[in-house]
Amino acid sequence: MDAHSAILIVAASERDANLYYATRFLAPDAFVFFQTATQKVMLMSDLELDRAKAQATVDVVLSYSAYEKQLKDRGMTEPKGVDIITAVLQEFGITDLIVPTNFGIELADGLRERGFRLSTRKEPFYPERAIKSAEEVQYIAQTMRATEEALGHAIEVIRAADIYKGQLYYDGKPLTSESIKKLINVKLMEHDCVAQHTIVACGDDACDPHNEGSGPFRAHEAIVMDVFPKSSQTGYYADITRTVVKGKPSDALRRVYDTVREGQEMGLQMVKAGASGKAIHSAIQELFERAGYQTGVINERMQGFFHGTGHGVGLEIHEPPRISRLEDTLQSGHVVTVEPGLYYLGIGGVRIEDTVLVTDHGCENLTTFPKFFEV
Amino acid sequence: MDAHSAILIVAASERDANLYYATRFLAPDAFVFFQTATQKVMLMSDLELDRAKAQATVDVVLSYSAYEKQLKDRGMTEPKGVDIITAVLQEFGITDLIVPTNFGIELADGLRERGFRLSTRKEPFYPERAIKSAEEVQYIAQTMRATEEALGHAIEVIRAADIYKGQLYYDGKPLTSESIKKLINVKLMEHDCVAQHTIVACGDDACDPHNEGSGPFRAHEAIVMDVFPKSSQTGYYADITRTVVKGKPSDALRRVYDTVREGQEMGLQMVKAGASGKAIHSAIQELFERAGYQTGVINERMQGFFHGTGHGVGLEIHEPPRISRLEDTLQSGHVVTVEPGLYYLGIGGVRIEDTVLVTDHGCENLTTFPKFFEV
Repeated sequence: MDAHSAILIVAASERDANLYYATRFLAPDAFVFFQTATQKVMLMSDLELDRAKAQATVDVVLSYSAYEKQLKDRGMTEPKGVDIITAVLQEFGITDLIVPTNFGIELADGLRERGFRLSTRKEPFYPERAIKSAEEVQYIAQTMRATEEALGHAIEVIRAADIYKGQLYYDGKPLTSESIKKLINVKLMEHDCVAQHTIVACGDDACDPHNEGSGPFRAHEAIVMDVFPKSSQTGYYADITRTVVKGKPSDALRRVYDTVREGQEMGLQMVKAGASGKAIHSAIQELFERAGYQTGVINERMQGFFHGTGHGVGLEIHEPPRISRLEDTLQSGHVVTVEPGLYYLGIGGVRIEDTVLVTDHGCENLTTFPKFFEV
Repeated sequence: MDAHSAILIVAASERDANLYYATRFLAPDAFVFFQTATQKVMLMSDLELDRAKAQATVDVVLSYSAYEKQLKDRGMTEPKGVDIITAVLQEFGITDLIVPTNFGIELADGLRERGFRLSTRKEPFYPERAIKSAEEVQYIAQTMRATEEALGHAIEVIRAADIYKGQLYYDGKPLTSESIKKLINVKLMEHDCVAQHTIVACGDDACDPHNEGSGPFRAHEAIVMDVFPKSSQTGYYADITRTVVKGKPSDALRRVYDTVREGQEMGLQMVKAGASGKAIHSAIQELFERAGYQTGVINERMQGFFHGTGHGVGLEIHEPPRISRLEDTLQSGHVVTVEPGLYYLGIGGVRIEDTVLVTDHGCENLTTFPKFFEV
């Protein structure tokens, strides 16, 4: 980056992981951040000014309202955000801006009109964000510990349930997706981990991998539990899926489970620095196909293995790299999920997911929760 | 909108309230939505296709991969997202696109290169989103009931605390911001409400309105509690702040409390359809100034009343309209907060906030929690 260039991000760091990564400052409303060759600068509202000075890992925190006043003093009646950003960037001698691909069009056009040259940088915007430090790995592992505790608690309740007329009962009441989701989410909140959209889906519900599940559990059917909370202390996610059955699974369902288990094990074996995400994904697809499990539209519904094998985990639940049909190369320090699944209406859905740290010679599994099917 | 125009949003509805409002479909990853003069259309990945067909309130759900395959069949080797969107929009005869101001610059430029005319529409992007239906008001009130229950629980614990050497103790242990925040957040999760960044800040901590608070509570100092969870069942937020003191507040602190209380009461009295947000905000500012409370930088820190009086609440915690130094007119059906505050280092911070429904003749307070200072 030369002396006239800067990275520019304007967003709410609460919802923009790159901005949080660059500043380590969480704010619910959008603010201006830029990074020159030599320094990181934030432009903050009066409300956030002092907190930013105290908390943000940047070199300079400037007052938005001070620049606004300056422009008014110079005769501009109603300076807009773009005018204020322009004034600050000009003061720093910036003419060229590197922005994320999701940088807002209105502000981008306004800056171009004022003479700035904009270029976009694709994800990973900060490539170093994908390579986790020891501290970041520790944070993800901490979130995973809380997640495993909550998941274990949920599975104990399912294990302890009674089967009556094909349904599960606990404490004399039907056991439901909703009650198990709440149990998991409350337990996680006790550990300052925020779980949203936890999936606890039984039978055909689980054949839609993003269906969160609802209603009473049926015996002998697979229950997919996918839990992916964020620690509010550190901001880092963890991601785990286990599939269990209470009762006796059909032979067809058991074979689906065993095949997914085998596919996941193969995926874990293939993960290492330098490995191709596409190759791992393809290998699992082929294993499933060889086992007779086709993927595609069957009875007007996508069935089989129709999602990616894995994704990076960190400040976002889905971040680079991907283990999917697209090219991507794993690097030492990546933290990724390995989560193949098979979904067939009438048989059920099975997904098994661990979160692992990629190393030079393989991977270190950050997940310690055992894998079993019948409870 | 003519036959060649469409609204276009490409975002993850999980983080884009307009997209969720338009589709009532929650997805963690970005998808394509457009709205012509006659129909709403979504373009979905294989993973989300069936769930979208089942859940989204749109007319047509198309398969992203089907269009991708079409382009490949026509000889395009690696069709990009912008190519696929172009193909779909052309099929619908669309040439002019209305996009939100935060529409991503890369995709915007790609669409312009392919001949589309883009214009931006400012917030409120869907003006009708600001006018809450009876059902939406009910949802916000439901979230508020859970919030009030959690807040009441927290205040009972503070009330029951013992004072020893100027600190609060509960069950023999120092009572902390962290423990009260967790108590509130866990209680809310039991009601399927997700609370993040709950503020429970004591003394000087609370003088920074976005400081979430930390450490043991001190007696005789103001504790600001600002709780603003989102219901995961409905997606709607509620927002409330109360300030309490355990022990005996200083005369200066009590006078701050009484003044904020008076300012908030005046704000509530002024809220009605047709009222100017700026006039309400200014009136409270003037009341505070007349009472001798100056706003500005004192000892290098912003002190006084240096945030807006209120904001809309709905699918976002901060949404239009604003009650602030900017012009905005309240309308019947708006749901807004009224939350003035005063913050002075060495005395403490006080903020009192209700969420109210704007009506033709005033407002209906959706908050029922009583206002008191000493506990």
